[in-house]
Amino acid sequence: MPAARDGQVLVKSAYLSVDPYMRGRITGIRTYAEPVNIGDVMQGGTVGQVVESKASGFVPGDFVTGMWGWQEFAAADATTLRKLDAKLAPVSTALGVLGMPGMTAYFGFLDICKPKPGETVVVSGAAGAVGSLVGQIAKIKGCRTVGIAGADSKIDWMKKELGFDAAFNYKSTSDYSTKLKELCPNGIDCYFDNVGGAITDAVFPLMNVYGRISICGQISQYNLEKPEPGPRLLSFMLVKQLKVEGFIVFRFADRYPEGITQMAQWLREGKLKHREEVVEGFQNTVKAFIGMLQGDNTGKMLVKM
Amino acid sequence: MPAARDGQVLVKSAYLSVDPYMRGRITGIRTYAEPVNIGDVMQGGTVGQVVESKASGFVPGDFVTGMWGWQEFAAADATTLRKLDAKLAPVSTALGVLGMPGMTAYFGFLDICKPKPGETVVVSGAAGAVGSLVGQIAKIKGCRTVGIAGADSKIDWMKKELGFDAAFNYKSTSDYSTKLKELCPNGIDCYFDNVGGAITDAVFPLMNVYGRISICGQISQYNLEKPEPGPRLLSFMLVKQLKVEGFIVFRFADRYPEGITQMAQWLREGKLKHREEVVEGFQNTVKAFIGMLQGDNTGKMLVKM
Repeated sequence: MPAARDGQVLVKSAYLSVDPYMRGRITGIRTYAEPVNIGDVMQGGTVGQVVESKASGFVPGDFVTGMWGWQEFAAADATTLRKLDAKLAPVSTALGVLGMPGMTAYFGFLDICKPKPGETVVVSGAAGAVGSLVGQIAKIKGCRTVGIAGADSKIDWMKKELGFDAAFNYKSTSDYSTKLKELCPNGIDCYFDNVGGAITDAVFPLMNVYGRISICGQISQYNLEKPEPGPRLLSFMLVKQLKVEGFIVFRFADRYPEGITQMAQWLREGKLKHREEVVEGFQNTVKAFIGMLQGDNTGKMLVKM
Repeated sequence: MPAARDGQVLVKSAYLSVDPYMRGRITGIRTYAEPVNIGDVMQGGTVGQVVESKASGFVPGDFVTGMWGWQEFAAADATTLRKLDAKLAPVSTALGVLGMPGMTAYFGFLDICKPKPGETVVVSGAAGAVGSLVGQIAKIKGCRTVGIAGADSKIDWMKKELGFDAAFNYKSTSDYSTKLKELCPNGIDCYFDNVGGAITDAVFPLMNVYGRISICGQISQYNLEKPEPGPRLLSFMLVKQLKVEGFIVFRFADRYPEGITQMAQWLREGKLKHREEVVEGFQNTVKAFIGMLQGDNTGKMLVKM
């Protein structure tokens, strides 16, 4: 059991987050995050409750969120924690719609794609924590929204609950290009990419002039032993004058208050729906993580302690 | 011989331009320019002299530039012509440093790459009409400038005459990645790409966080019978948060006066050098065009009538 020093708080985990970007941390290669090596604690967003406080502003029983990762208890510096008000929203939302995935959707879509009313927006990984929010934000902004996901139940949810104009199951679709042409008769203006690979290859040739592409994830590539080759995409960027930008949500950290305020308002107004896929038990964390990478989840995948 | 109608001018060509983008026009596929079909006049920038005028503002003997393409005489609408002052600059510069290639370099580099002093800029196709200007603009803006071209004579010219900090001949270099690492010890902040293919594949992994890439051309790909596969580059865009944008210079047409004024000033101040590779004789136009695509030219390739 860790012990809190001065300025620290002993927290007991309530929810652990499992997110696609964690896959990059355990490759042993430095990407944008420091690698997590064998024997280290897996890092990631966490929600928990204060057990003991040696920091002003925190008392036992407070709910907090931080980055203490996959452990049951942690002694965390108070400066790394944010207090949560369980009356305002369920505390688990701090790992989803009002947390990192929510900010990823909000800033990564609006700031990079700059969608305009009437434009067509395609979202890959559209039933995940981020993609499901991007599609709804696109609808709020007046766009035609087309989602791609890997299960009929996800497609139903996106179309019936989240308001996507169209969606298709890539696992039961053989020709993505033909399907996208059918669902996007006016071409594609914005693409929010969580997956990369063959789905993205099919999107690029259908982009309209001055299209914008936000590269949020490339989950189809994360588990490859060797990089796979693909079609060269730069010629499409040239001919259609596309703007393509990769981003890591932390670059928007200064503006999270703006994003959280807006997302919370849309939630209250019923314009934004979210769903959590909760796996119970710390011992199932790795299974939840692998399942999330394989697309088992609809909405945000969480582990409840 | 064409005849000028009211509002038209009969022009006699003096210089024809041969440019890489023309390759796309004769594929039979619509890219961003209308295709030129067999039997059509090849389109392109031209400089010539008025022989007969049926339009106000033009008199025989005036030098003009327009887009009447590969023909010796043309009846051109006066509204499509711009008068040139041969006292201010040689009229051929209207096809190079003070014309489309100059505007491509000026806006395509400054607007898309937004270079900052001290940054490292890599230019491919760096001895061509556009690349040779981009490298010099990068130097004017205080950047470390590294060029890639396909002949030792071009490398010498770039380093000794144009002020590039470093350059290498890709035809005599086996490992582009190692060479780029050596010449760019602080990584690459901006990349101005004229060529695509294996050179560009070597640049992407060396880009710094928040790097900017301007896709101006993909000349290595234009003559392929079938698209060639390549490494997937989107993961680099994600991890390094790169912004990659393709452009066609015509989008900046409203701002050409700004670009021409600045380029002309740099020319007068001796900050910008340019070179023309002049092929004599209309009958050699196709040879000049093919030669330019193969890299025969240093600087701007022109045909003098």
